[in-house]
Amino acid sequence: MKKGIAHYQIGDSFDYFLLIKTAVKGVASNGKPFLTLLLKDQTGEIDAKLWEASSEDERVFQQGELVKVTGEVGQFRNKPQLKIHSIRPSQPTDGVFHNDFIEKAPVEKEELMERITEAIFEMKNANFQRITRQFVKQYQEDLLSYPAAVRNHHEYVSGLAHHIVSMLNIAKEMSKLYPDIDKDLLYAGIILHDLGKIKEFSNAVAPSYTTEGKLIGHISLMAEEVRIVANDLQIEGEEVTVLQHMILSHHGKGEWGSPRPPLIREAELLHHIDMLDARMNMLDRALKKTAPGEFTEKIYPMEQRAFYKPSFEDK
Amino acid sequence: MKKGIAHYQIGDSFDYFLLIKTAVKGVASNGKPFLTLLLKDQTGEIDAKLWEASSEDERVFQQGELVKVTGEVGQFRNKPQLKIHSIRPSQPTDGVFHNDFIEKAPVEKEELMERITEAIFEMKNANFQRITRQFVKQYQEDLLSYPAAVRNHHEYVSGLAHHIVSMLNIAKEMSKLYPDIDKDLLYAGIILHDLGKIKEFSNAVAPSYTTEGKLIGHISLMAEEVRIVANDLQIEGEEVTVLQHMILSHHGKGEWGSPRPPLIREAELLHHIDMLDARMNMLDRALKKTAPGEFTEKIYPMEQRAFYKPSFEDK
Amino acid sequence: MKKGIAHYQIGDSFDYFLLIKTAVKGVASNGKPFLTLLLKDQTGEIDAKLWEASSEDERVFQQGELVKVTGEVGQFRNKPQLKIHSIRPSQPTDGVFHNDFIEKAPVEKEELMERITEAIFEMKNANFQRITRQFVKQYQEDLLSYPAAVRNHHEYVSGLAHHIVSMLNIAKEMSKLYPDIDKDLLYAGIILHDLGKIKEFSNAVAPSYTTEGKLIGHISLMAEEVRIVANDLQIEGEEVTVLQHMILSHHGKGEWGSPRPPLIREAELLHHIDMLDARMNMLDRALKKTAPGEFTEKIYPMEQRAFYKPSFEDK
Amino acid sequence: MKKGIAHYQIGDSFDYFLLIKTAVKGVASNGKPFLTLLLKDQTGEIDAKLWEASSEDERVFQQGELVKVTGEVGQFRNKPQLKIHSIRPSQPTDGVFHNDFIEKAPVEKEELMERITEAIFEMKNANFQRITRQFVKQYQEDLLSYPAAVRNHHEYVSGLAHHIVSMLNIAKEMSKLYPDIDKDLLYAGIILHDLGKIKEFSNAVAPSYTTEGKLIGHISLMAEEVRIVANDLQIEGEEVTVLQHMILSHHGKGEWGSPRPPLIREAELLHHIDMLDARMNMLDRALKKTAPGEFTEKIYPMEQRAFYKPSFEDK
Amino acid sequence: MKKGIAHYQIGDSFDYFLLIKTAVKGVASNGKPFLTLLLKDQTGEIDAKLWEASSEDERVFQQGELVKVTGEVGQFRNKPQLKIHSIRPSQPTDGVFHNDFIEKAPVEKEELMERITEAIFEMKNANFQRITRQFVKQYQEDLLSYPAAVRNHHEYVSGLAHHIVSMLNIAKEMSKLYPDIDKDLLYAGIILHDLGKIKEFSNAVAPSYTTEGKLIGHISLMAEEVRIVANDLQIEGEEVTVLQHMILSHHGKGEWGSPRPPLIREAELLHHIDMLDARMNMLDRALKKTAPGEFTEKIYPMEQRAFYKPSFEDK
Amino acid sequence: MKKGIAHYQIGDSFDYFLLIKTAVKGVASNGKPFLTLLLKDQTGEIDAKLWEASSEDERVFQQGELVKVTGEVGQFRNKPQLKIHSIRPSQPTDGVFHNDFIEKAPVEKEELMERITEAIFEMKNANFQRITRQFVKQYQEDLLSYPAAVRNHHEYVSGLAHHIVSMLNIAKEMSKLYPDIDKDLLYAGIILHDLGKIKEFSNAVAPSYTTEGKLIGHISLMAEEVRIVANDLQIEGEEVTVLQHMILSHHGKGEWGSPRPPLIREAELLHHIDMLDARMNMLDRALKKTAPGEFTEKIYPMEQRAFYKPSFEDK
Repeated sequence: MKKGIAHYQIGDSFDYFLLIKTAVKGVASNGKPFLTLLLKDQTGEIDAKLWEASSEDERVFQQGELVKVTGEVGQFRNKPQLKIHSIRPSQPTDGVFHNDFIEKAPVEKEELMERITEAIFEMKNANFQRITRQFVKQYQEDLLSYPAAVRNHHEYVSGLAHHIVSMLNIAKEMSKLYPDIDKDLLYAGIILHDLGKIKEFSNAVAPSYTTEGKLIGHISLMAEEVRIVANDLQIEGEEVTVLQHMILSHHGKGEWGSPRPPLIREAELLHHIDMLDARMNMLDRALKKTAPGEFTEKIYPMEQRAFYKPSFEDK
Repeated sequence: MKKGIAHYQIGDSFDYFLLIKTAVKGVASNGKPFLTLLLKDQTGEIDAKLWEASSEDERVFQQGELVKVTGEVGQFRNKPQLKIHSIRPSQPTDGVFHNDFIEKAPVEKEELMERITEAIFEMKNANFQRITRQFVKQYQEDLLSYPAAVRNHHEYVSGLAHHIVSMLNIAKEMSKLYPDIDKDLLYAGIILHDLGKIKEFSNAVAPSYTTEGKLIGHISLMAEEVRIVANDLQIEGEEVTVLQHMILSHHGKGEWGSPRPPLIREAELLHHIDMLDARMNMLDRALKKTAPGEFTEKIYPMEQRAFYKPSFEDK
Repeated sequence: MKKGIAHYQIGDSFDYFLLIKTAVKGVASNGKPFLTLLLKDQTGEIDAKLWEASSEDERVFQQGELVKVTGEVGQFRNKPQLKIHSIRPSQPTDGVFHNDFIEKAPVEKEELMERITEAIFEMKNANFQRITRQFVKQYQEDLLSYPAAVRNHHEYVSGLAHHIVSMLNIAKEMSKLYPDIDKDLLYAGIILHDLGKIKEFSNAVAPSYTTEGKLIGHISLMAEEVRIVANDLQIEGEEVTVLQHMILSHHGKGEWGSPRPPLIREAELLHHIDMLDARMNMLDRALKKTAPGEFTEKIYPMEQRAFYKPSFEDK
Repeated sequence: MKKGIAHYQIGDSFDYFLLIKTAVKGVASNGKPFLTLLLKDQTGEIDAKLWEASSEDERVFQQGELVKVTGEVGQFRNKPQLKIHSIRPSQPTDGVFHNDFIEKAPVEKEELMERITEAIFEMKNANFQRITRQFVKQYQEDLLSYPAAVRNHHEYVSGLAHHIVSMLNIAKEMSKLYPDIDKDLLYAGIILHDLGKIKEFSNAVAPSYTTEGKLIGHISLMAEEVRIVANDLQIEGEEVTVLQHMILSHHGKGEWGSPRPPLIREAELLHHIDMLDARMNMLDRALKKTAPGEFTEKIYPMEQRAFYKPSFEDK
Repeated sequence: MKKGIAHYQIGDSFDYFLLIKTAVKGVASNGKPFLTLLLKDQTGEIDAKLWEASSEDERVFQQGELVKVTGEVGQFRNKPQLKIHSIRPSQPTDGVFHNDFIEKAPVEKEELMERITEAIFEMKNANFQRITRQFVKQYQEDLLSYPAAVRNHHEYVSGLAHHIVSMLNIAKEMSKLYPDIDKDLLYAGIILHDLGKIKEFSNAVAPSYTTEGKLIGHISLMAEEVRIVANDLQIEGEEVTVLQHMILSHHGKGEWGSPRPPLIREAELLHHIDMLDARMNMLDRALKKTAPGEFTEKIYPMEQRAFYKPSFEDK
Repeated sequence: MKKGIAHYQIGDSFDYFLLIKTAVKGVASNGKPFLTLLLKDQTGEIDAKLWEASSEDERVFQQGELVKVTGEVGQFRNKPQLKIHSIRPSQPTDGVFHNDFIEKAPVEKEELMERITEAIFEMKNANFQRITRQFVKQYQEDLLSYPAAVRNHHEYVSGLAHHIVSMLNIAKEMSKLYPDIDKDLLYAGIILHDLGKIKEFSNAVAPSYTTEGKLIGHISLMAEEVRIVANDLQIEGEEVTVLQHMILSHHGKGEWGSPRPPLIREAELLHHIDMLDARMNMLDRALKKTAPGEFTEKIYPMEQRAFYKPSFEDK
């Protein structure tokens, strides 16, 4: 595959395939319909306008379609915009695959699954182990394909599992440095804390919020499921309450969506590890797009700060 | 029964029965043990010290004991304090009853139950009706005896049911004034919103927070039970989600303990009716103790305001 | 009258009358003048551009003019925009009336007046009654035509009186449920609390803020008038101070514009009833425009929340 | 007169006159009544206990009484406390005067009055001049004796006039530096801004808040009087509105009690000059009591900061 | 020179010189390049578009270039926009000077320098005097040409020195009114407090933030330099610490960028004088552009307030 | 050595050595002097009163003195208080050592030094290495004995080095998990970030804040020293600025004392690692004192939360 769309400059010609992320119909001031397309590949996205779109165009060029585009990269309101010369749907003979145009975690699903299984296997507390194993079994497919968020961090295919595995790795090291930590509880909390997003989001590839997601939220959805699964497995006792607390408190504060603040050491740690991994993911990806000696774009969920890439770093 | 403890002045003699609310052992600066007692009847509370308490005293004068006390009302750090001359446990022959020394709702349990049953009976939506009826049946005894809070508002026996019934009365009128309101949903939300307190508090008469109450909280405890009860009753569909949302959002904001803000008209209304009834309960009781032309003590949960009782009110 | 502008879809032809809400002159990039019109009827509003406007056009098509328009509904920046084919002022022979294009309260002025008069008649406290009657008499015409706000809630003709009457209805029921409430004081507070808006707003139909409104505000304007009217009526004593306090504190907090927080039971209640009725008005109207199973637009004064209309509601 | 109470050390004997600022009756743990006295002179205050107080003592030693005390300065909870050996009311033959034991502004009333009169005389705008003159005439006696606050800054006899004159002095210089300032408006705002305190406080010497002060507040009380006085003087027009705005906005923000923020240059300036003079008054007095190289006590209204007195300052 | 750009109305023809403040290249929807120019003179700024810009145009019309423009003042999105008919670089024979198109302080550099020198000369504390003199000597040229801010207040050539001199004038008067003030310390703090901006900004005429400015900030940059200069001058002792504290605390609060709040009287005063002069500068300039009876535009750094210019002011 | 003071119960006799942490003179209500002593050993602290203290007692029993005490553990205001029967200074023949009564880090100084040296040795960037080495060399003795804070976390001898080494251990693992991290910069930031506390605190064993500490703070003190040391070592360039930024931003926000927020990846990480290690230190030590199934005392710097120790943990 060619260099990605993220690497094109104003003025460059474009002649390759892109995936339609969104397609919105409009009516121009001359009364003629047009399509506003958001096109993407694995490296990034670009806006495009298809002027004087026929009703056939509207039918064909929809979200999820892979298309061949020729055109030129212009600029509109300080953002790049692709001026389309021609556009057609991809065909089997083009030899391009939908899958290659979607951003994915940098680690393979199998490896992610292996690491999660290993963490469950290491647990000595049978209650935590049985509950966690049950969830991973039940949601395995979605767990390995859902993103960890709709935007901001780990917002790509397998992002959820990627986030979990990164957090497990941090947790492993923290457990060595602070030996009083209940590693089983921390591992269980990490694996389960965001699984409710599978119900909060509509699907893995182009996720939006479900009604249940908006009205209940992934935190409460998951806490309730832990109780139901524990009941099914006939597990009782404080482990269940404590595990629910881990999930309920992992956003850290009421203002951030947690009905209870962390009141257990491992819950406090879970919150910090979650935040740390999310922030490193955002930062690393923003800095990758930035030249040494320059500042990144403002990163909204990090208090809108723009970060500096020191000029003595050559990566 | 005599006039209550709330009506005694500094300098008055006391010679009647009181209930021990709390009893704490101390060691005085002369090395001798003493008991700090908090004594109460239906009208109020008073501090007392039992100096040079024997180990027999410590064994006998414990929380929940009804005692005969003689003494004099003095003052310590601007608060009344009962100087004990003599104290003994009450005896069957005294003809006084534990029950008469506990604050209770001003409405009888039977009447409260009747009004709740009536509200359920009025519902036309079978799902809301079945879920609500199931809860009321399951928790009937506790529902009729628990307070609505550990302190501040409706913090007396049957306070929870009293609060529910007051709210149902407001809701009934609001439904007439704003006919678009889904009255069934609003009624169901009111009846269920605080039932989780039965798990959050240790008991009805001298409630403290349970571990589950602290780690999970009554909001999440109840939302989860709604799902479980609905599953048991084989009720599915949006009514269950919406009812959970009513409970989850009734504190109004993340800072106030709700993981989701109200996103449904009836949820918004539930929050306001809850707040309104709690505030009227606090205000009415504080003003009852205040003379016209005077200010109440600071009411902490109402932003520490002291309220004025106009001098033209003769109540 | 035909179906209103709110019911037109992108692509529909339009051929009917509309009222010009605002008309702003612009100069296009080709150097020619044009008019940006905001056109409305009782159901809603739509933007329109009149390109190459002559100076005659500018003179004729001004705010408040009723016009006959033919055109087509297009779209600009995700909002509908009326593409004008022809436009002319309405004529007497058209048989359309200015009044039918303005949003009004759903209750007639006579009925609103009757209910306010009734509330004053019910008062037993002569001071509250005389002051309130004097104000209603003095401002009757404006009181019955002004909106309650420039935007957000009750922002239509007679909105102020509609808001007052809704609040009186709530107050009546609350007084039954909490019998300690001083109903006369509460009624007087409700009738007077927002009358200062008559000075704060420039007029009833297309209100903007007056200089006095911006520099003093309706709260202080009204509190001061209560004192002046009481002086004129030779009424002295605490009722006047308390009534001023009701007005001064009805926004609830300093941050929300009240120089004093509510320090009297009825002032606290006035604040809550005011907020409750404003919110129900906003919510009901937003939900009317929303299909079951959908969310409303973000409602800005309600913390920018979008509300859900449950799919089991068929209204 | 001897050195004041502020200069006594732990262990010193005391034998002189003091004024009773407050006297509160208590009942000791041995059942005997005692008096808690707060005694003061022009330099400061000290707590004292009069044990085993007779009912005659209670009658005699009341607030405002000047007394002869012998005793010793001890310490209680890290604060000095005067151990009373003997106490008696002062007698005419003692040759001491009540007035000499009250803290007063460091400038004489006559001089303060002169400076205020001069500022009014300088005004060229007849409306501002007439309104201001009318107020000064009407309230002259109280204006020259009231404090500017119950505590914190200028909380002494003539503190209000002292504060006004200090502010006028700053205003005079600021008007030279920023010649666009409307000096008449600024002077009028300064003279009137806090006059409402005469109604907000009960009296000049031992002020507490009046009911009117609590329910309306000095800001609204004064704004309303400006309108009434202007009406009486038959002054109309924008000057009155603007002058009211100066008063309403002088606390700067809603959170600080102003129903409107400053929206006029001179109102913004009035707020800053008011704050500046209040802070300098607090700071100067706190630093006077502090040795070079030491920190002051925490100053509560200045965000609880403790200020440092540099060791190179020899004042 | 002609009347400035700020005085042109929509529809006016323009035919004079302007300075290019910024020039940004764009590509139009027809694929052709254009330049977005921000043009200015001493009175204000105007946007302009140069359509179909050649690569020669791009090379010539850059930031800092003085150009001759003919065109017409149109309007785009409610803001004036200059429609360019012709444009060319200025030539020596045009007799116009770059310097005349840049906004400058209303006081000459020589006069500013004189006033600063005078303040240093007045100091009696040799340490403050030597440190201040050293800084003024070292940075003299930049001190007299830099603005005090990139935008908002004193954002013009010599703005920094103008701000310092205004503050010195206020300080001089304040020192007379509050004689305990250490005038030397206050003067030194005023002269040095913002000198770090010389390193924080890239240059005097079109300043942007340097990397050092963003990562360290002018406050820390200057505090550190005071230590280094004091070391060089072999000055030790508390004066240096106190002077650093003045600089570190002059923004008043952590939220506003100061690592320590003011803890010395003169530091508190410095903060207030700084704020006062900045606000008066913004206000005076905003009101100059506003007609009596009108409100200014919203002033962002003053909590977005729009200020009123009373109609009785004829300036 | 015997079991520590932390393990004594109310009613126990005490007969061993303790260190005087603070000694404050008071005068009792009977006029006699007494001493309030705070006594400690390695396990904890206890209050004690020495009644009727002679002037000899005052001279002898001062802060830092090791004393032999016999007495009984009583209770005062819900806190244990040691009732002293006899007290005398320790003597050489007692065979007890001052050092054994002071809380210290659980790791030896030599080991801490070794780990810090190792981290410096690992650095590849010569500038970071030289600056860090210079500081460690210059401050070695204090670095190994100072606490990391006056209270809350690592508030014991060698606490500063213990905190640094824990953070280095976390950093090492994080660098493996996120390979883009500049490990040298992160290590340098960790080693230097709190060194300014050596100037902020008066001494290692009983630290209080110095004047410099209060007026400048450890953050600015250290940032300035980095510049000075770099100048001395003739190191220039961005590494110095970036290292200063690490120190200035490590508290994360203006409200928390940092003049700049983290704007570099490693600065963000430094802030999180600092917070994480401080919180784990506080939590581990609070939970050590708590029985399974119980809550800790409120931990003030962790938002006053009380943490739960699950009953299934047997540590």
